[in-house]
Amino acid sequence: MARQSQQLELVERPTKGIVPGKTFRQRTVAAPTAADLRDGQLLLECLYVSFDPAMRGWLDDRRSYLPPVQIGEVMRAMTICRVLASRSAKARPGDIVTTATMGIREVGIMPEAQVERPTLPALPGVRVTDLLGVFGMTALTAFFGMTRIGQPQPGETVVVSAAAGATGSVAAQIAKIRGARVVATAGSDEKCRWLREELGMDVALNYKDPDFKEKFKAATPKFIDVYFDNVGGEQLDLALGRANMFARFVMCGAISQYNAGTQSGPSRNFNTIISQRIKMQGFIVFDYAKDYRSALTQIAQWLGEGKLKRKETILKGGIAASEEAFRQLFQGGNMGKLMVEVKNPDETARL
Amino acid sequence: MARQSQQLELVERPTKGIVPGKTFRQRTVAAPTAADLRDGQLLLECLYVSFDPAMRGWLDDRRSYLPPVQIGEVMRAMTICRVLASRSAKARPGDIVTTATMGIREVGIMPEAQVERPTLPALPGVRVTDLLGVFGMTALTAFFGMTRIGQPQPGETVVVSAAAGATGSVAAQIAKIRGARVVATAGSDEKCRWLREELGMDVALNYKDPDFKEKFKAATPKFIDVYFDNVGGEQLDLALGRANMFARFVMCGAISQYNAGTQSGPSRNFNTIISQRIKMQGFIVFDYAKDYRSALTQIAQWLGEGKLKRKETILKGGIAASEEAFRQLFQGGNMGKLMVEVKNPDETARL
Repeated sequence: MARQSQQLELVERPTKGIVPGKTFRQRTVAAPTAADLRDGQLLLECLYVSFDPAMRGWLDDRRSYLPPVQIGEVMRAMTICRVLASRSAKARPGDIVTTATMGIREVGIMPEAQVERPTLPALPGVRVTDLLGVFGMTALTAFFGMTRIGQPQPGETVVVSAAAGATGSVAAQIAKIRGARVVATAGSDEKCRWLREELGMDVALNYKDPDFKEKFKAATPKFIDVYFDNVGGEQLDLALGRANMFARFVMCGAISQYNAGTQSGPSRNFNTIISQRIKMQGFIVFDYAKDYRSALTQIAQWLGEGKLKRKETILKGGIAASEEAFRQLFQGGNMGKLMVEVKNPDETARL
Repeated sequence: MARQSQQLELVERPTKGIVPGKTFRQRTVAAPTAADLRDGQLLLECLYVSFDPAMRGWLDDRRSYLPPVQIGEVMRAMTICRVLASRSAKARPGDIVTTATMGIREVGIMPEAQVERPTLPALPGVRVTDLLGVFGMTALTAFFGMTRIGQPQPGETVVVSAAAGATGSVAAQIAKIRGARVVATAGSDEKCRWLREELGMDVALNYKDPDFKEKFKAATPKFIDVYFDNVGGEQLDLALGRANMFARFVMCGAISQYNAGTQSGPSRNFNTIISQRIKMQGFIVFDYAKDYRSALTQIAQWLGEGKLKRKETILKGGIAASEEAFRQLFQGGNMGKLMVEVKNPDETARL
């Protein structure tokens, strides 16, 4: 019998959060085969799917840095795949590759231009999932946002929101490496404990704590020099109120707003941007593509020296686990990098 | 009889707009005399008081770039004064000086460190009021905001809000000089006519026009590369929605918010800052003090070449005209630089 392939398709654009069973549908199709390949194409099977807050934005039909996913299309995601068959010089059968465009499906055919054949550093303990994790887009996002826009100086105060997430946890650690005093915020006491005890954050605050505002103020006695924003909304407003002169606000994400239906920006303290001469800058990791390689070299060095620690939350269950992954992502369930394992790579997977 | 001096004192902090007869009181005091001078001090009489949107911010008891004016203190303002007596080498009796700290009063004693002895370029038509106008702080604010943060390139689209104001009118003209296509917004058809016909703006839009949003969109078909913001609020949100990739938002002022009681920032389109990689940067002109001289040289050159035009709204009536000046300022009554003439300088005033 011909192989089948599960895929997740967009059915209806959500007005607020992704609705289980309504926003997407899982569909079974006949898997393409090696016989379907043309020159320059690869047949891939998915091993891991990356789940990132940015995916919510891809569902809205508005001008953005990528075109929206269309109704009926397979949902876009970063994935790690294994090559099943190849008519490209880029990779051979058995090779591990990554792609940003195959989306959430088990088996697919991709043009070689949309497939990356990554190299991983020769460090003990390096594993396939690091391609989405510590050597993936979220880590690169943290790297460029913190080093190019935030530019923390030794002794400065850096605040990172959603600091237990894939991007935040790397951003916060880079600020520590650069000698800053780092205040991390997250959504549970368990996350805060991890941030303090494992990642060595100077302060970690649970934003659900009823005394969060007072604690936030107390934790920033010399005000904030760099705010790495992953959440937007109320925390951003609070950070503006505590901004130091010439503070840099790294605008990376606004997860608190993605499912709100109506967007809202900072309000009460917005004009601090003028009085404290704040630079607030948005960015997308793709803008730094030419510097990925040198960034990954630096990240590998920190990882090897034990200065940078990684954490992953991997859900099992294949494509069907996607709904649970979205739920965790937007309800703050995961710690570190969140992904779904579609197929466990065998031992001989060539990295 | 000893000379008397009128002064405007802060009585009660406004929660929203300045309330005539309530926020300030005018009081008559005995004017200081030459006999009161110590070494390094000057006795000054005020000729012109500058009225600027920033003054509203100085009334709020919150952390800002200058300490708030205290209850009972003379209201702070930029002023042009004449030296009545001097125990300083900085200026002689009869000289024209400026000061940011004497405030709204007829006669006062100032330490030499807080007095500037300006030099004006030898251009035909240069007048005393230019020290607050085209060679004053608002023009310098426009200069540094537009050239250092906005950095418009030839052919780019620049939008300036409150473009008929003291800062906006200079900012908009500098963008034209730099070769940009400039869309100006203002609060009356008369202002828009002036912006188009006298200042040569490509488009001028009245934000009170019921079709303003549609016209704003139509006026920015290639989106916005530089937004010079003097008003905040709804127009800022609209501009975010029309921002081009890598747009620069020069955060200069937010006059629409100053009297609102509750501050509000941009809302619906705030996350465009990420998707379009916007740089939003606040600034205060004082930060560029070391470059004032070269900026003024450039402004003088443009003025001499006829590339830069200035406009002033001068109210007569002395200190008592302050209430009317505040009213015009926050209700959009004035065009160009707004000031109150406290005393007309005689013909022999040494520039």
